[in-house]
Amino acid sequence: MGDHKRADARRNYARILAVAEEEVAAHGAGASLEQIARAAGVGSATVRRHFPSRRALLESVSRERIEALCVRARDLAGEDDSRAALLAWLTDLLAYSVAARGLAAALSYDDAAAVGSDPVASSCAVLMEEAGGPLLRRAARDGAVAPDVTVADLIALVVGVVLATEHRADPAGQAERLFRLAVAGLSPAQ
Amino acid sequence: MGDHKRADARRNYARILAVAEEEVAAHGAGASLEQIARAAGVGSATVRRHFPSRRALLESVSRERIEALCVRARDLAGEDDSRAALLAWLTDLLAYSVAARGLAAALSYDDAAAVGSDPVASSCAVLMEEAGGPLLRRAARDGAVAPDVTVADLIALVVGVVLATEHRADPAGQAERLFRLAVAGLSPAQ
Repeated sequence: MGDHKRADARRNYARILAVAEEEVAAHGAGASLEQIARAAGVGSATVRRHFPSRRALLESVSRERIEALCVRARDLAGEDDSRAALLAWLTDLLAYSVAARGLAAALSYDDAAAVGSDPVASSCAVLMEEAGGPLLRRAARDGAVAPDVTVADLIALVVGVVLATEHRADPAGQAERLFRLAVAGLSPAQ
Repeated sequence: MGDHKRADARRNYARILAVAEEEVAAHGAGASLEQIARAAGVGSATVRRHFPSRRALLESVSRERIEALCVRARDLAGEDDSRAALLAWLTDLLAYSVAARGLAAALSYDDAAAVGSDPVASSCAVLMEEAGGPLLRRAARDGAVAPDVTVADLIALVVGVVLATEHRADPAGQAERLFRLAVAGLSPAQ
């Protein structure tokens, strides 16, 4: 491919991604791929070439926030209180996922199930698990989290809280309330 | 409307509901209303007359399981161990919601937000809150659940766990693991 064609393809991709971000912000994870193609002025086949699956689309749309959460995890790794640091990071993940429709859905996909069908997209879930790993290990070492809890568990609970509250009147407030409840335990054994 | 027309309308409704059950079982909460109309051999307007919203459709599809959960709650209300009774009911709600696609989504809607737009459908969420109320009150009285926890909180957590795990390789196992974690607490304060 010549320079000219490559530049064209890049511009095409940037335009489709910008439209996709708007559509996902407006309609959530179920945004119409056909509508994205129409609004970007390209064919459906072009959209599918850039985003071979809905998951790939949601991951690309969420990319910036995912990167910010990776940076935040590194910043928090130096905090003294390991439990507070882990909970601060999860609370940020929660707030980002409430604000950015599509991120929770992108994180709800299983990597094992997606491999093969979508090998190109590097996975948001994998990036989040790597980012949260050091925070969880410190908290577990300090006894603040049970030793068999995984980062995937924590992320899944955050994702669940977001998905369960997105149709509520006050999604952010409800999500925070529910997350605090899961942190404390619905009914911890006495 | 004459007897003949009424009988026709009933048959129509029964056929659309049966098709809707199959489509939701196959495709989850996002099942296509157009496809339901096609498969039932009726127009889209007829489907919309019976089910004015996606929520109304999901609630009708989930009706039998909702009723079974109401019966189950009454049976459990007589158990000695109030904590075990509440958790048994929530575990049944979890298992039903994993098995019956569409039920968790139906329960994720806020009633306040839905009033007006969909006044006819009696709400699954309201029925579940009424069913779980006596179980929660006994458990709270026995100190097994914090006094500010509501049935809506418990149902939302179950719904979240189901939605967060539905794309995983082993949804039932993952949902159960995550629910146990929320019951015990991610990181209960020491």
